[in-house]
Amino acid sequence: MKKVGVVLSGCGVQDGSEIHEAVITLLALDRAGATAVCLAPNVDQAHVINHLTGQQTRETRNVLVEAARIARGHVTDIQRAHAADLDALIFPGGFGVAKNLSTFAFKGVDCTVHGDVTRLCKEMHQDGKPIGFLCIAPTLAARIFGGEVQLDLTVGSDPEVAAAINKMGGRHVTCATGDIVVDAANKVVSSPAYMCAKSVSEAATGIEKLVAKVLEMA
Amino acid sequence: MKKVGVVLSGCGVQDGSEIHEAVITLLALDRAGATAVCLAPNVDQAHVINHLTGQQTRETRNVLVEAARIARGHVTDIQRAHAADLDALIFPGGFGVAKNLSTFAFKGVDCTVHGDVTRLCKEMHQDGKPIGFLCIAPTLAARIFGGEVQLDLTVGSDPEVAAAINKMGGRHVTCATGDIVVDAANKVVSSPAYMCAKSVSEAATGIEKLVAKVLEMA
Repeated sequence: MKKVGVVLSGCGVQDGSEIHEAVITLLALDRAGATAVCLAPNVDQAHVINHLTGQQTRETRNVLVEAARIARGHVTDIQRAHAADLDALIFPGGFGVAKNLSTFAFKGVDCTVHGDVTRLCKEMHQDGKPIGFLCIAPTLAARIFGGEVQLDLTVGSDPEVAAAINKMGGRHVTCATGDIVVDAANKVVSSPAYMCAKSVSEAATGIEKLVAKVLEMA
Repeated sequence: MKKVGVVLSGCGVQDGSEIHEAVITLLALDRAGATAVCLAPNVDQAHVINHLTGQQTRETRNVLVEAARIARGHVTDIQRAHAADLDALIFPGGFGVAKNLSTFAFKGVDCTVHGDVTRLCKEMHQDGKPIGFLCIAPTLAARIFGGEVQLDLTVGSDPEVAAAINKMGGRHVTCATGDIVVDAANKVVSSPAYMCAKSVSEAATGIEKLVAKVLEMA
């Protein structure tokens, strides 16, 4: 049974993991007979957004604790995760990727990535294990590997984020909603999901393709 | 295009909507060509549970605001929802159903149900429109309709909750994980989902059957 790390960044599209993308990833893995291992960093969220109004609130929430909502309690501090224990890794999207796993939302191409996210991605790559990036998450891949390895990545067709990916050392490939871009040599797969999707089923089509491809490579 | 109300009770299995059940419901509706209309009451949650530790926290969170995380911002106060605008109604589960939509978690068979939840369910029933209840949500149906109409309902095989449903005036029917119980005369469908499911795909099988049956009846 293949074990796949699913890296969460909170619980909610505006300040954490995109919930639909995370759940559809977990469902696709389970249906394929793989075991999902939910992971998240034990850090406070960059901020909390009221998802009804879009306004920032004065609350403080922890990424690992909120991720546990999506994971039904079963989530591990990413600090304790190692590539040796995993066959593949997948990053659902949501602004939490660009706010809590990295600082891309605030600093663009000058962003930094959480230390354990960087470490785990590099370990996976060194071990020749596949990594999937959904939605905005390919920005992580560009920041982590850019300069060392030029990965084929997609966020769909957003010109601003595509340009940032290229500037950080990735190679952005335009991709239709519901499809995937595969960097076969480096075992990296990406899909635009809610970067383009106008509905949950559009996002799901790409996510299901990504999960299948990642498992095939694992 | 059929419009289906999806009643949320927060965001997280321990104090709100069960996230997997809610997302799989939304996905199944979208894939069937139906439009989901997310609804939730504008009230504070009964409490907030840290989903990592299972402990209650000192926070206050609002059901409508947290439900907006699952609904990606598109959620309507259930006070403004009317059966005339909907073709069907579905309740995902999670303890929020028994804590925020009703007081079943605290008062058992002596529980009360949120006024607008009761009103909307009764309107739907009067209009001959179908309602689906997942997981623990059939307790709402038993409390709302028990005494007037004896509905066939299932929460799987949990003896305690089954007995409560019978005591409130429902007729509990044992059901396998991943299956549904249909009360055809009253257009009510239920499925155990995470009352029994040991995995997200087990829950999904029943949810997808429930959505298909509800849409067929609509």
